[in-house]
Amino acid sequence: MTKHPRKSDFPVSQVRRYLEPGPIVLVSSKWRDKTNIMTLGWHTILEFSPSLVGCMISGGNHSFHMIRNSGECVINLPTTALIDTVVRIGNTSGAEIDKFVEVGLTPQKGQEVDAPLIGECHANFECRLHDDALVDKYNFFIFELVKAHAAPSPRHPETLHYTGDGVFMVSGKIISRRSLFRPDML
Amino acid sequence: MTKHPRKSDFPVSQVRRYLEPGPIVLVSSKWRDKTNIMTLGWHTILEFSPSLVGCMISGGNHSFHMIRNSGECVINLPTTALIDTVVRIGNTSGAEIDKFVEVGLTPQKGQEVDAPLIGECHANFECRLHDDALVDKYNFFIFELVKAHAAPSPRHPETLHYTGDGVFMVSGKIISRRSLFRPDML
Repeated sequence: MTKHPRKSDFPVSQVRRYLEPGPIVLVSSKWRDKTNIMTLGWHTILEFSPSLVGCMISGGNHSFHMIRNSGECVINLPTTALIDTVVRIGNTSGAEIDKFVEVGLTPQKGQEVDAPLIGECHANFECRLHDDALVDKYNFFIFELVKAHAAPSPRHPETLHYTGDGVFMVSGKIISRRSLFRPDML
Repeated sequence: MTKHPRKSDFPVSQVRRYLEPGPIVLVSSKWRDKTNIMTLGWHTILEFSPSLVGCMISGGNHSFHMIRNSGECVINLPTTALIDTVVRIGNTSGAEIDKFVEVGLTPQKGQEVDAPLIGECHANFECRLHDDALVDKYNFFIFELVKAHAAPSPRHPETLHYTGDGVFMVSGKIISRRSLFRPDML
């Protein structure tokens, strides 16, 4: 059984630390008493403050309408311990099964949104739909991260990065070049 | 001196292999006979075909207007061998220096765009501005990748993933879960 990392509040303006390196994330949603989870690799930070993230969520996903209708979701950060769970989530549809039950993940209550947090993930970012101007044309949702929770340790969790073809890159060593940066670039 | 990897044509519809894992990229541009290079970590794949990539390019970058005016750029994929060059590019402004000369990178001629490719990078993706609907509001450019070049080896280059604070994550081991994927998910 996967453990539930203990998490603390984390500043939403600093979420780039977790998302900018490009990990696969699990997006959880809730609409009319049903919950769902999808995998997502097509996302980018857009702004520090307000803390904005853009996500391409294909219209073929059961989550698409749940997120658009509820105007909410949670972006959850899984580590490599959850790799097989991530694959199962990507392989199944919430139209047919209850993903939390089926894959054995634990829904937890958020503070700002009704969509559930995933207890087993290293971090959880509660999101409100900020702008859907590009949803019809590109399935591109812009969310504001309104509340962030992250496990303080490890500082750099081992994350999964998808390359297509069923192949993942796992995050590797950490290198600081802080001393070479102009102070205003940090 | 950094070597110039030998590159082959690469299918633009498969560029997600390089960009979806979330590496720092170098974006090169050309406008009125001046060239420039900037670092970029805020990007996401948006579509396979046409091959679309979304990039948040802050208006404070000298490259912003060069790219908007020319409607072109090249997304170049550096490996960890170029880490100090990447930091220098991020620390300087093309308004003051010629970055290709200053950091010692080699401009190469593209096939579809006038913006230069960076010879030392593992892969080069020639881009045309596809949609600037969100540029005024979010500095978010949607590019179509019109031509891709990639070194065939190594298949999974060691890439740099920025976490903020002058700290990079380096891509680590490769794990295949291909056998667990539904065929239509590959």
